[in-house]
Amino acid sequence: MPPFVDKLRSMIGAERGDAALSARELERLRAQLKECAAGLGGEVSARARAVRLAQTYLGLDDVGRQQFLKLIALEFGPRPEAVAEAHAAYQAAVGSPAQWKAEAALRGAMRSSRIRILTQFNAMPQGVKFLVDLRADLLRYLENDRELAVLDRELESRLSAWFDVGFLELQRLTWHSPAALLEKLIEYEAVHEIRSWTDLKNRLDSDRRLYAFFHPRMPDEPLIFVEVALTDELAGNVQALLDEHAPVFDHRKADTAIFYSISNTQVGLRGVSFGNFLLKRVIDDLKRDFPKLENFATLSPMPGLAAWVRKQPEVLAEAGVDLSLETLSTASWADDKAQARALREPLLRLAARYLAQAKRGGDGGPPFDPVSRFHLGNGARVERLNYLGDCSAKGFRQSFGMMVNYRYALDEIEDNLEAFASEGRIAMSSTVRRLARPRAVEKT
Amino acid sequence: MPPFVDKLRSMIGAERGDAALSARELERLRAQLKECAAGLGGEVSARARAVRLAQTYLGLDDVGRQQFLKLIALEFGPRPEAVAEAHAAYQAAVGSPAQWKAEAALRGAMRSSRIRILTQFNAMPQGVKFLVDLRADLLRYLENDRELAVLDRELESRLSAWFDVGFLELQRLTWHSPAALLEKLIEYEAVHEIRSWTDLKNRLDSDRRLYAFFHPRMPDEPLIFVEVALTDELAGNVQALLDEHAPVFDHRKADTAIFYSISNTQVGLRGVSFGNFLLKRVIDDLKRDFPKLENFATLSPMPGLAAWVRKQPEVLAEAGVDLSLETLSTASWADDKAQARALREPLLRLAARYLAQAKRGGDGGPPFDPVSRFHLGNGARVERLNYLGDCSAKGFRQSFGMMVNYRYALDEIEDNLEAFASEGRIAMSSTVRRLARPRAVEKT
Amino acid sequence: MPPFVDKLRSMIGAERGDAALSARELERLRAQLKECAAGLGGEVSARARAVRLAQTYLGLDDVGRQQFLKLIALEFGPRPEAVAEAHAAYQAAVGSPAQWKAEAALRGAMRSSRIRILTQFNAMPQGVKFLVDLRADLLRYLENDRELAVLDRELESRLSAWFDVGFLELQRLTWHSPAALLEKLIEYEAVHEIRSWTDLKNRLDSDRRLYAFFHPRMPDEPLIFVEVALTDELAGNVQALLDEHAPVFDHRKADTAIFYSISNTQVGLRGVSFGNFLLKRVIDDLKRDFPKLENFATLSPMPGLAAWVRKQPEVLAEAGVDLSLETLSTASWADDKAQARALREPLLRLAARYLAQAKRGGDGGPPFDPVSRFHLGNGARVERLNYLGDCSAKGFRQSFGMMVNYRYALDEIEDNLEAFASEGRIAMSSTVRRLARPRAVEKT
Amino acid sequence: MPPFVDKLRSMIGAERGDAALSARELERLRAQLKECAAGLGGEVSARARAVRLAQTYLGLDDVGRQQFLKLIALEFGPRPEAVAEAHAAYQAAVGSPAQWKAEAALRGAMRSSRIRILTQFNAMPQGVKFLVDLRADLLRYLENDRELAVLDRELESRLSAWFDVGFLELQRLTWHSPAALLEKLIEYEAVHEIRSWTDLKNRLDSDRRLYAFFHPRMPDEPLIFVEVALTDELAGNVQALLDEHAPVFDHRKADTAIFYSISNTQVGLRGVSFGNFLLKRVIDDLKRDFPKLENFATLSPMPGLAAWVRKQPEVLAEAGVDLSLETLSTASWADDKAQARALREPLLRLAARYLAQAKRGGDGGPPFDPVSRFHLGNGARVERLNYLGDCSAKGFRQSFGMMVNYRYALDEIEDNLEAFASEGRIAMSSTVRRLARPRAVEKT
Repeated sequence: MPPFVDKLRSMIGAERGDAALSARELERLRAQLKECAAGLGGEVSARARAVRLAQTYLGLDDVGRQQFLKLIALEFGPRPEAVAEAHAAYQAAVGSPAQWKAEAALRGAMRSSRIRILTQFNAMPQGVKFLVDLRADLLRYLENDRELAVLDRELESRLSAWFDVGFLELQRLTWHSPAALLEKLIEYEAVHEIRSWTDLKNRLDSDRRLYAFFHPRMPDEPLIFVEVALTDELAGNVQALLDEHAPVFDHRKADTAIFYSISNTQVGLRGVSFGNFLLKRVIDDLKRDFPKLENFATLSPMPGLAAWVRKQPEVLAEAGVDLSLETLSTASWADDKAQARALREPLLRLAARYLAQAKRGGDGGPPFDPVSRFHLGNGARVERLNYLGDCSAKGFRQSFGMMVNYRYALDEIEDNLEAFASEGRIAMSSTVRRLARPRAVEKT
Repeated sequence: MPPFVDKLRSMIGAERGDAALSARELERLRAQLKECAAGLGGEVSARARAVRLAQTYLGLDDVGRQQFLKLIALEFGPRPEAVAEAHAAYQAAVGSPAQWKAEAALRGAMRSSRIRILTQFNAMPQGVKFLVDLRADLLRYLENDRELAVLDRELESRLSAWFDVGFLELQRLTWHSPAALLEKLIEYEAVHEIRSWTDLKNRLDSDRRLYAFFHPRMPDEPLIFVEVALTDELAGNVQALLDEHAPVFDHRKADTAIFYSISNTQVGLRGVSFGNFLLKRVIDDLKRDFPKLENFATLSPMPGLAAWVRKQPEVLAEAGVDLSLETLSTASWADDKAQARALREPLLRLAARYLAQAKRGGDGGPPFDPVSRFHLGNGARVERLNYLGDCSAKGFRQSFGMMVNYRYALDEIEDNLEAFASEGRIAMSSTVRRLARPRAVEKT
Repeated sequence: MPPFVDKLRSMIGAERGDAALSARELERLRAQLKECAAGLGGEVSARARAVRLAQTYLGLDDVGRQQFLKLIALEFGPRPEAVAEAHAAYQAAVGSPAQWKAEAALRGAMRSSRIRILTQFNAMPQGVKFLVDLRADLLRYLENDRELAVLDRELESRLSAWFDVGFLELQRLTWHSPAALLEKLIEYEAVHEIRSWTDLKNRLDSDRRLYAFFHPRMPDEPLIFVEVALTDELAGNVQALLDEHAPVFDHRKADTAIFYSISNTQVGLRGVSFGNFLLKRVIDDLKRDFPKLENFATLSPMPGLAAWVRKQPEVLAEAGVDLSLETLSTASWADDKAQARALREPLLRLAARYLAQAKRGGDGGPPFDPVSRFHLGNGARVERLNYLGDCSAKGFRQSFGMMVNYRYALDEIEDNLEAFASEGRIAMSSTVRRLARPRAVEKT
Repeated sequence: MPPFVDKLRSMIGAERGDAALSARELERLRAQLKECAAGLGGEVSARARAVRLAQTYLGLDDVGRQQFLKLIALEFGPRPEAVAEAHAAYQAAVGSPAQWKAEAALRGAMRSSRIRILTQFNAMPQGVKFLVDLRADLLRYLENDRELAVLDRELESRLSAWFDVGFLELQRLTWHSPAALLEKLIEYEAVHEIRSWTDLKNRLDSDRRLYAFFHPRMPDEPLIFVEVALTDELAGNVQALLDEHAPVFDHRKADTAIFYSISNTQVGLRGVSFGNFLLKRVIDDLKRDFPKLENFATLSPMPGLAAWVRKQPEVLAEAGVDLSLETLSTASWADDKAQARALREPLLRLAARYLAQAKRGGDGGPPFDPVSRFHLGNGARVERLNYLGDCSAKGFRQSFGMMVNYRYALDEIEDNLEAFASEGRIAMSSTVRRLARPRAVEKT
């Protein structure tokens, strides 16, 4: 259980029960939920009741929580007969001036008590975080219990309204930020692990920037954060970038900003998108502070490369790679200098084809690589592949050490993302494009 | 046009057009809205387009704006055929495990582009305020154009989500608050006009408190505020309370907090309720700061009294009042001491009956008086009537100088509001209850 | 008595006595002071005693306070015998390595208990302000009682250390600043009275700037403030500048900053200079925010002109002015357009000569005009005279409506102030210089 | 060289020269200092010059810096002849009304240019810190060069004025404080080393408090800080107190606050006392937050014990300790349980006598132990000795593992510190007093 929940538990005085609900408890819970839904006694009382419900929830183990959520999902939806009636009236009114009132009435009939119950939790001191974490639970249970989907969709929709990008605040985090906040970065960093406070301090030095989005009601929780290096070249190796002993680059000479790590932190906000706004806002901020900056690019992992190869092993030979997937997935092969030299071209080719051709759900689908989907969807282009760009164990495991730079060329972004959205066209530099071509063609 | 809009106009560079839309403009607008609704080019582009749309909107006069909103209301709703189809599937699935997925699908079919278009405005620097003001426009147009109601209901629903009480921040405003903020109080005070900065400063003295709710994205706009006087008695006259020359009461001796003015400030948030939470939170805050406080009560106007009398003039005679409505509505009758003495009992009776019996929409409805509805709905009781409690012109015009104290007795609130909500029972002190009885009964 | 003192009085619980000290009280006070000076019981106790002493002080009227301060001045100085002894040792050691230790010892013998007593007041919540106000008292008493000078000099020296410019914070005040702070501006404005909150708001509009120096321990008290107008010309008339109905100038087009009012607020800091730093820091700040600004100039009064003429009435005729001092000192003469035209040249001549020739304490002294002394001492030059530049009653009374622009030409400042400091040379534009010349010469 | 100086160096653009001054450079420096002292060209120019001087200073190595300071000390003092003249006039005036003016004149003649030069450095962005660090240099050079003492005394006097306790701000530091600030604690902790960020976080947990004094012009530098543990007993072992794995004590049950570490951070502020105020302010703060707290005590080291024994080795035998100083100074002897039991009484006796009898400079002097001097001077009493209270290597080295609790009994403090200050009387609990007695007496 995450530390936050324990803290909240102690704040609202919930006992740690860790038990499923008995039939009697389930009955009592049903009654409590009904009271909540009815809103008896006014909003203030209803909210007070919600706090007690939250205490109940936090005191349950996974089985109990799933029962709790299931109860809300199945018993507090709209009444089908009322919906049918309102729908008939609506369809009858279509085309007449009464259509609009009828539409509102149908919408009313569809309104469920579920969301009313859930939003009442928001009255607690840390209610928003409670709901985000509740959704994280829900998403877990959802994997085996699709009947919860209806509740999940309603909750996602409400969280989307609350986490509208207009409400988010961009903050720059520095070594002068609260330690409690910086500690969260260590906890949440998902791409290149922060190994120590010294490592963290190095990522906040004068040649680095770290930005995060915050919601006003979750001021202690970064929602998503991006780490940036200011340099004078397109960085190609993440270990070099994170070397604590490397000299600090004079940021006044920087013409390039490298986004080398982007981490979402809240599982419970899955489907609520703000990553694309983050990059846009960060680029704006950087340009204001460093007018000389001209290049904005990522240094990104290719988390799906090995998985793709596993699915269609023939791509290795096609690209001219003569090592097995297993061997490629460990660091040792690269220690042999000659071998490393020999594999350079083939692996670059493999990676280029992966980015150009691997699709989720087969041809015509979106890119297989999730990081690629994200940046191409934001209007970036595939700029450069970096051989042995991530020499960590994880780097070899997921992509044989390959990394990639996506470039955000400000005057291309709009065109790129429109072409990507409408036709699925992937913007690529000519170098990478050439690498992605079938070898036969090249040979001609 | 409110000053804010002018400011926003200048911020986003909108030209002041003040003109209705030509057919060609309407066509162009329709195209713009379609682009917005389609979300082509990703969220970032869509939001950029929304800013341009907002500029267009701000450049229009009332006729143009109404056209603009009508377009959104009528042309960007759900498609009736899609709704019909999803509804059929839903009803077919009721009772089966497929019901929940079908419900989610129906909900999806009902989702309109209207709200998508509107929320995109939120990307502007002051987008929330823009939408609140847009709704204020909408409410005005709605009076003569009921077809806009469907849009209004969707917008209200979204604003309710955004202005959930969990997101609001209670702030105490003092003489140390920003002048720009205090100026808003002067502008927004709706009950007892603030006549000058000296008057305002007096309302912020050490024997006074002023609290407001704020939304994190509208930090310069109090949403609702309440003015409190700390005293050692149930205040009965508002002019005495606001006398700038009265000595400052030693707040350490206070046992009573009088809420003497509550003002909603945002027309565009009509229907989004937070007033009841305000009082609850303020009482909590006061009790923490002044542990000796025992009594919490209002000194309230009776804004509907004269209007009620106008509708059923016979109540005057029944209560024993022998002056005409017109005479009662001016201050002069009270200058005659003898007359003032003679009318005391009859007018108290009239006011008591008004509070006890006047209903909106006839017997069985909620109280006719809006202030009464608000406080009774929050669990207060009618405590005391104050003869010549408000001797301003407005005081005579709306209630012949009468005022009333509603008391929030902390141990009664729950019972009161439940009884009021379920049975419409009005909590009253025995004194007022006695005054409200028919005279014949008393004589027996 | 200023409001602050009343507030402090109530904070530390002093009774308002307003009485001189009886012999017995004087004796008790002497004992208290001795305890303070001895520092018996450690610093913490000594400070606690100081608070009680401050209470005593605040409870006294002027006669009592003067007795209080006199006691400190005369009885808590250094002991002459100890000084004599240390001095003899010092002079004997001059030239030997022992000189430096002996110097330190002499300095020790000179150290008085006075400042020790006074600085202990600093332990009170608003101790610094208390001492600044105590010095204001002291300066008043000093006029008739020169024996207090020794105490005043020690206190001034300590205040100079505390109010070292390195400790001051430059703040920009805006309409978003706390009302309590803005109210102080209305109270303290010494040059062009702020007539209302509307007037004040106008002075804080987007084409205006207001800067103040603050001390970290007196955060509610601006020490000195300057009001700036952003324009595109050298402003010549202060009423036009302060016209609340004048349109707001588009600050993005400004190339000129006019300092039109500078006010010192704390009488008790007389002799502690920070005005020159203020202008320097403000110019730096303005240049950063408005890179297009090229001209920095004042629109200044000539507060000594009428006083100078009164002393040597012949200057009127010499300049060709044929009205009496009395007539010139009222606004009415300027209503006669013909007369106003006729007097233009003579009055400009008079003002030019005043600035060029009038000296305090006769020839060779510093400029007679205090505002002129201040700006010339800061490196400005006399740029332009403004006929009928201040048409207020005060403007006519002190300078017959004349005003003057001092210009801060950034590349001249150093030279100007050095030449002014060493030779008393006054920097002037050629136009003003010509006006200042004797007419006979011109005629030749 | 401390990191700060490097940072400042880079801020003001000083080159790192690390060289002594040549004769020519010395001459140029002398000229620069003279300009500074003369204040030619006004304060603004003088300050600008001071920045250049500071750059020069920071570019020098220790030899050069000492030359620099020596130049100021010896050549910018008062002129002996002027002092002689003013002194004669003063002595002649003693007893007459002219005495006070003459005293002020003598004070003026004593005023040196040294402090004027030094305080001008304060105009730099981090000028106060620069001067504090310059004094740290000065104190180092002073050990071998007593002629610098005169400059040191003047600088100490000015720093005392600037760091008057009235200007200091008490701040509570928590895990939510800026990481950059918390890092300073790790750097500055002088009593019980902070080993890691985890150790630090443990010291900031809910059963701990950490307070520091700050100066408004050195907001990034704690001047002194104290670490507090909330417990329900008099803590006797520091390792137990700092155990990261110990359960967190429920602070709501605390009746005792243990000050277990106090660290001064700025060498350059030696002689400027604020430690006693810190404890007083912290106790006030703790009592406000935890009204149940009744006991305030330290858990303190005895840093001088081993040094005292080294000076007079016979005390060991007198106390009945039969191990050598060398053996006692290492941890190993305590591993032998039987030996550890046997030595308990003798070592407690030794420690008690040390606290009761060891004086600096022989009998009649202040306590030999610096920590004891500090707490007794603040009014605490020696409460309890703790055998094997600090089992770190440092603990054995300096005090054979002994620790001591000083208790601040709020109703005794005044009496204790007065008796200590006037008679040197040391307040002790009866238990410790008994231990301190000669054994012969006990045996009778």
